[in-house]
Amino acid sequence: MKVVIIGGGAGGLSTASNIRKYDEDAEITVITRDEHIAYSPCAIPYVLSGDVGCFDDIIMHQPEDYLERDIMVITRAEVLEVSSENNKIRYQSLDSLENDGSEDAEKPVKELYYDYLVIATGGAPFIPPMEGADLEGVFKIRTIKDGAKIKEWAEKSHKAIVVGAGLIGLEIAYGLKNLGLEVTVTEMMPQIVPRSLDPSMATLVQKYMEKKGINFILGQAIDKISGKERVEGAVFGDEEREADMVILATGVRPETKLAKMAGAELGRWAIVVNEKMQTSVPNIYAVGDCVEVYDAITGHNTQSPLGSTAVRQAKIAAKNMVGIDAAFRPVLNSMVSKIGALEFGAVGLTKTAALQNGLKVISGQKRALTKARYYPGAKRIDVKMTTTLDGKIIGCQIIAEERVAERVDTMSLVIAQGITCNELVNMEFSYAPPVSMVIDPIILAAEDACEKLKRLNGD
Amino acid sequence: MKVVIIGGGAGGLSTASNIRKYDEDAEITVITRDEHIAYSPCAIPYVLSGDVGCFDDIIMHQPEDYLERDIMVITRAEVLEVSSENNKIRYQSLDSLENDGSEDAEKPVKELYYDYLVIATGGAPFIPPMEGADLEGVFKIRTIKDGAKIKEWAEKSHKAIVVGAGLIGLEIAYGLKNLGLEVTVTEMMPQIVPRSLDPSMATLVQKYMEKKGINFILGQAIDKISGKERVEGAVFGDEEREADMVILATGVRPETKLAKMAGAELGRWAIVVNEKMQTSVPNIYAVGDCVEVYDAITGHNTQSPLGSTAVRQAKIAAKNMVGIDAAFRPVLNSMVSKIGALEFGAVGLTKTAALQNGLKVISGQKRALTKARYYPGAKRIDVKMTTTLDGKIIGCQIIAEERVAERVDTMSLVIAQGITCNELVNMEFSYAPPVSMVIDPIILAAEDACEKLKRLNGD
Repeated sequence: MKVVIIGGGAGGLSTASNIRKYDEDAEITVITRDEHIAYSPCAIPYVLSGDVGCFDDIIMHQPEDYLERDIMVITRAEVLEVSSENNKIRYQSLDSLENDGSEDAEKPVKELYYDYLVIATGGAPFIPPMEGADLEGVFKIRTIKDGAKIKEWAEKSHKAIVVGAGLIGLEIAYGLKNLGLEVTVTEMMPQIVPRSLDPSMATLVQKYMEKKGINFILGQAIDKISGKERVEGAVFGDEEREADMVILATGVRPETKLAKMAGAELGRWAIVVNEKMQTSVPNIYAVGDCVEVYDAITGHNTQSPLGSTAVRQAKIAAKNMVGIDAAFRPVLNSMVSKIGALEFGAVGLTKTAALQNGLKVISGQKRALTKARYYPGAKRIDVKMTTTLDGKIIGCQIIAEERVAERVDTMSLVIAQGITCNELVNMEFSYAPPVSMVIDPIILAAEDACEKLKRLNGD
Repeated sequence: MKVVIIGGGAGGLSTASNIRKYDEDAEITVITRDEHIAYSPCAIPYVLSGDVGCFDDIIMHQPEDYLERDIMVITRAEVLEVSSENNKIRYQSLDSLENDGSEDAEKPVKELYYDYLVIATGGAPFIPPMEGADLEGVFKIRTIKDGAKIKEWAEKSHKAIVVGAGLIGLEIAYGLKNLGLEVTVTEMMPQIVPRSLDPSMATLVQKYMEKKGINFILGQAIDKISGKERVEGAVFGDEEREADMVILATGVRPETKLAKMAGAELGRWAIVVNEKMQTSVPNIYAVGDCVEVYDAITGHNTQSPLGSTAVRQAKIAAKNMVGIDAAFRPVLNSMVSKIGALEFGAVGLTKTAALQNGLKVISGQKRALTKARYYPGAKRIDVKMTTTLDGKIIGCQIIAEERVAERVDTMSLVIAQGITCNELVNMEFSYAPPVSMVIDPIILAAEDACEKLKRLNGD
């Protein structure tokens, strides 16, 4: 079995490793444009912030490591063509393109045949069509190279504007602040993290960041980036803010060009795959940021551009290619982030998103503590839960300075299992004074939801 | 509605508070022998260790706080008689007994009538019948008073022996070590925490404690405590160990005397209750350490002497008394503890316990990290999972220096929902480099279980 995988990120390389796990004989080749492979893009902000020492630290494997497992990795190579009729791709080294500067015709274009092709091309930063987006000092953020450029520029800068208050935008903003810059985050929507948090919860994260000295301009689009060659500031309506660097954290667009060329069906957002991670071309699979996923709650297709999603998809794709039946489950968009000491996470739908999707819902909310009240170092924890009117939990948001991620995972399971708030309040949680409250904050929020539903039903 | 509750611990007081939540008019009286109420016995070791400042800190409410909610609390009072025919109890103040020293007949014995009686008498430390158990310097550990006595004695002592390597024993041992004593823990069984951990996992906790300088004598019963008036040591077979204090952490026996007097059925371990927390006497309920619970996995009755269990039972009992249907779920014996920096927790059955119960099981085990590999401060985490031969997860043990408790809660839900290791590996977990691995250690352990089952089934 010959497998060619396009893309050297979490999706592509996990697919390669998983195939090897099940099939010793498969010929596996991974091709990537990037010069680095197997690094964690989600860690780039933490290198900026200084929490992780350097960019090399977040590269977990070298191509040689894969060669040991008989997986061939070709870096800095651009796939020019996918021919699904001939089960063949054509690619060209980026180095030869750049180095000799000669005509296309003279450059060595190579071919690879495949039995299975895996498209794991990820996404490219979305650069809004905006005056000044091409000035020096304006950065996108996707690869380690982007991160290194930002760090280098930041070291001689004083004022940064981060456009976009999603996770990456906030994490980058905190990183730059830690480097000593004056940082302003701007966001078109009237709140930060609009995809995962309701306004009341988003405010808690915003306040924490404001306390750390980060400024916010919300509910206002940036009109243009000003400057001649180098960035000098950004314009919002009548106002101009000075800046010597601008980071565009305005989201990621799935890279679907090769999939389209191969004749694979594209959906509203990205490549369409079935639950085996198979595209509409039977021997072409796709995984990671470049595919659409099915939202477990809304029932609509959506995006889930997360490393953890890519890794889960890779496992499913690999199994199916080697002949083991496996299905990728609909996603709940479970996420977590850490900014300074503050962790925040969410899974399922926010109340806002539920209402936008036409669902009738209520929310239960509770502020409590992460340990017994008397235990030194107990932190405030905020839990908000979204439930349908029959009590089924469909979303949860959690914010605290510790112990958030695993609670999000518990709630992920609660939602996946269709558990109601009435059932949840009777669930068994572990307890010891140094690590939890005798009644878990999750239970307290579920009790609040139960009370609200009771009042609503006039009991 | 008149409710009398015997016992001022987590079970008794939570029952009182919950009844008040649902019924403004109920007359609620709580009677306790103890002089303190509403404190957390599980926190006593952490006061000893110095993690919590003083014993007063762990008292969360005073009787006056309950009076504000119109709940009458009578402390230092002994219930002499329960007459279930007349719905009446008779009690006597312990202060009058001790202070005036006069004849029983002259002391004021009071009566209280009830519509519902709640027995929340907890348990008393089990003192093994052993020579020397009554010497000065030998302590049991249950109340704040016990804790204070131990602390006072420890301050002028050098060598302590802790008998019993359950949670309380280990936590107390660590507390005494922190106070500067030389500490030896002895346990009849050949391992520590035999109820919750398999030997391979128990060893990890033991090694951690040994590194902290705590000694262990396992697999050997203590023959007697030596000394004339004061304890001088303990004898194990031919060997004698010096000690100027001995703590008996040899478990707790449910206090069932009053229940028996009331004619309530007792089981093998404690008071028998139905899922409403009702005893065999219809208007007498019982909650907390004095009742038997139903084990969700073995299907046998067992004990669950945990504050969190008592609180859950209290809610169920209160609801049923005020006429709201509610059922207490079978328990999974979810536990967690923290010793120094090490957290360890478990839920469901260990492999050992499963085999003892005649179940055919395998285990999946994995050592991983609590954060991304490159993230500073990532800690080792060990996860062990027990599954039946059809893959159903029936137990899990987790040890790490952080983020254990919430993972235990996730696994509690996994077990309660009857999820298999094959299903678990496809579940969605949240991920960010500072707080988790891209594949959660729980998933890795579940994958190991799947592999073992596959090999076992010859696939």
